[in-house]
Amino acid sequence: MDLNAIRILGLDPGLRRTGWGVIDVLGSRLSFVACGTILPPEAGEMAERLAFLHRGLVDVLLRFAPAEAAVEETFVNMNPSSTLKLGQARGVVMLAPAQMGLPVAEYAPLLVKKSVVGAGRAEKAQVRMMIGILLPKATPETDDASDALAIAITHAHHRGAAARARAAL
Amino acid sequence: MDLNAIRILGLDPGLRRTGWGVIDVLGSRLSFVACGTILPPEAGEMAERLAFLHRGLVDVLLRFAPAEAAVEETFVNMNPSSTLKLGQARGVVMLAPAQMGLPVAEYAPLLVKKSVVGAGRAEKAQVRMMIGILLPKATPETDDASDALAIAITHAHHRGAAARARAAL
Repeated sequence: MDLNAIRILGLDPGLRRTGWGVIDVLGSRLSFVACGTILPPEAGEMAERLAFLHRGLVDVLLRFAPAEAAVEETFVNMNPSSTLKLGQARGVVMLAPAQMGLPVAEYAPLLVKKSVVGAGRAEKAQVRMMIGILLPKATPETDDASDALAIAITHAHHRGAAARARAAL
Repeated sequence: MDLNAIRILGLDPGLRRTGWGVIDVLGSRLSFVACGTILPPEAGEMAERLAFLHRGLVDVLLRFAPAEAAVEETFVNMNPSSTLKLGQARGVVMLAPAQMGLPVAEYAPLLVKKSVVGAGRAEKAQVRMMIGILLPKATPETDDASDALAIAITHAHHRGAAARARAAL
């Protein structure tokens, strides 16, 4: 890792599968570091599933020590009970990096697809193909890990604007 | 505190206000320990607000060392964006006790009101009045703290049944 590079953690939250992807950014150059999927147990108490997810996130944060995190904003056009569950996972996913002092940016799914594929209505397969082009060394084993890398790339493109907006507050 | 008593933490999750209430249970006798409201900053990044909420919960857990926790199940008949935000707060609220190894039970709002007031359709003012009768020393300063004590009382009434159900799995 170049010492001037910024390490970014992208996160695609979900209670059953949370994707994560780490990239380094140096100017306009992106390089792949690692990616994966956290799979909390599907049975058991909700609180224990959330604790499993949190431990998985802390493990990733300690192993790769990213400087900034980005999370996908969530579609909420599903049923209310699913929205609540996704919200619970998302709360834990945003909490873990914030507890370590990382800024946590949020990006709309349309912006993520536009940043990576160039079109807001891209399919998951297109996102995955573009990840292969933008980060040739990446081999995401799930769509969730691929989406997490896409979110990290989106943050790499937009983090300057986000920082300027914060500074202007 | 009687050494045979079980200390219960009730939690009423919310992103703007999370109520908490601690009681001791010995047989059918309930006694008030403490209650309060965590008020995360309303401005700022979502992740930072969630981290504030988590720190507040950890503080309560360390100060009062409850053995079991109970959280209200959430109405989801609000708009999807509010449901998602509530879910995020709820995820953090359930996570904190689970991280310390506490079992975290969930109870439907109707059951909470029925357990405390005797009727499922009770108003907040009725809940508060019954808290004053069941826990004379309690002086909850918000409806959220009052609701949290009601959730703790509900768990005191139902924890035996919940433990038997778990043992039968």
